[in-house]
Amino acid sequence: MTGLFVSFEGVDGVGKTTQVERLRAYFEARGREVVVTREPGGTELGRAIRQMLLHGVGSSSADIAPRAEALLFAADRAQHVAETIRPALDRGAVVITDRYLDSSLAYQAGGRELTADDIRGLSMWATGGLLPARTYLLDMDPALSHTRLQHSADRMESAGDDFQRRTRQAFLDLAADDPARFRVIDAAQPIDAVWSAIADDIAALEAAASVAAAVDPRTEA
Amino acid sequence: MTGLFVSFEGVDGVGKTTQVERLRAYFEARGREVVVTREPGGTELGRAIRQMLLHGVGSSSADIAPRAEALLFAADRAQHVAETIRPALDRGAVVITDRYLDSSLAYQAGGRELTADDIRGLSMWATGGLLPARTYLLDMDPALSHTRLQHSADRMESAGDDFQRRTRQAFLDLAADDPARFRVIDAAQPIDAVWSAIADDIAALEAAASVAAAVDPRTEA
Repeated sequence: MTGLFVSFEGVDGVGKTTQVERLRAYFEARGREVVVTREPGGTELGRAIRQMLLHGVGSSSADIAPRAEALLFAADRAQHVAETIRPALDRGAVVITDRYLDSSLAYQAGGRELTADDIRGLSMWATGGLLPARTYLLDMDPALSHTRLQHSADRMESAGDDFQRRTRQAFLDLAADDPARFRVIDAAQPIDAVWSAIADDIAALEAAASVAAAVDPRTEA
Repeated sequence: MTGLFVSFEGVDGVGKTTQVERLRAYFEARGREVVVTREPGGTELGRAIRQMLLHGVGSSSADIAPRAEALLFAADRAQHVAETIRPALDRGAVVITDRYLDSSLAYQAGGRELTADDIRGLSMWATGGLLPARTYLLDMDPALSHTRLQHSADRMESAGDDFQRRTRQAFLDLAADDPARFRVIDAAQPIDAVWSAIADDIAALEAAASVAAAVDPRTEA
């Protein structure tokens, strides 16, 4: 695998989409193939699963059970990795995903009844252990992100401010547990300042990769 | 939980549906509430998942990755247990399911690329560890069951005779590993003889439960 795998995480409304597009432009300007994708719904199967998760199935359907929900997210992720992410990394592309397994950990483990170990175990099994080289956590007070949010409320988003606060904290805890992979970016800053923090970090990440490649030509250049 | 949970397993065409209905009639004649169900597709969510698994998603969809497939089966099972099986057992019903987790073990672990431990782990997590009190494995040479099979070939069924033979052997191995739960019934016998073997065993199972209940009134009567 010779590509670079980057994920963006954070609650809705923190500006992930904007920064994903900036990072795409950054790498495309350097002549790299860039694959931008998202979870849930990064594949056709994933989009069908996303429809189930957001809107339920049928008119009389019972609630989706917590374990079923977790398994559906994991199925989306397994397909996403097998169909999109791994093939792109194998041909040397930069893969940028808007949410990955940390979202499941923050939303499901932080906000619902399953344990973090449950969700982590499922996600690691689903992905065959594939983690991003870098994860940008765009962090903001939920009160601010809520007012930024343009699109209509869905199942997750309508779960309330308390849920958003717990989810934010869950993301911050995940970042604290894996400082080598995470960078926490203050998303309340102006968009250009957020991007500048990401660009500086990506430049450092590429420089480190170049040094590693000079030492061992098998590593990511 | 005061109900009785029974599953039927075996490759397609061995006569599970017929025996499920005989067992339903047996318990209904004794005044028990009976819930007959099936996997995949025992719930509305499960039916939607089954559509994905059998027919794929969309016109241009890639193959469903093995891990995604396993997770979708597990999601179906988690919903099935949470929505249908556990509530029925909790109110004292007899639950008879046409296929349960042994089918995943036999079809996915026996026939495809994942290990039995992978599938077993997912299934046990999905169900919260709920296993049937009794599993009837209807066993038959695949050459015979193939000629009995009336309905059109689907994705699993079209996978070939070699696959059916391996799946049959996987079921037999599962039964050998858990003789307390499994009864292997020769499904090449006439329907009445198959039923007679099941009825004798169910009577013994009920008698054993009555003895246990006489000793400990909390157990299934």
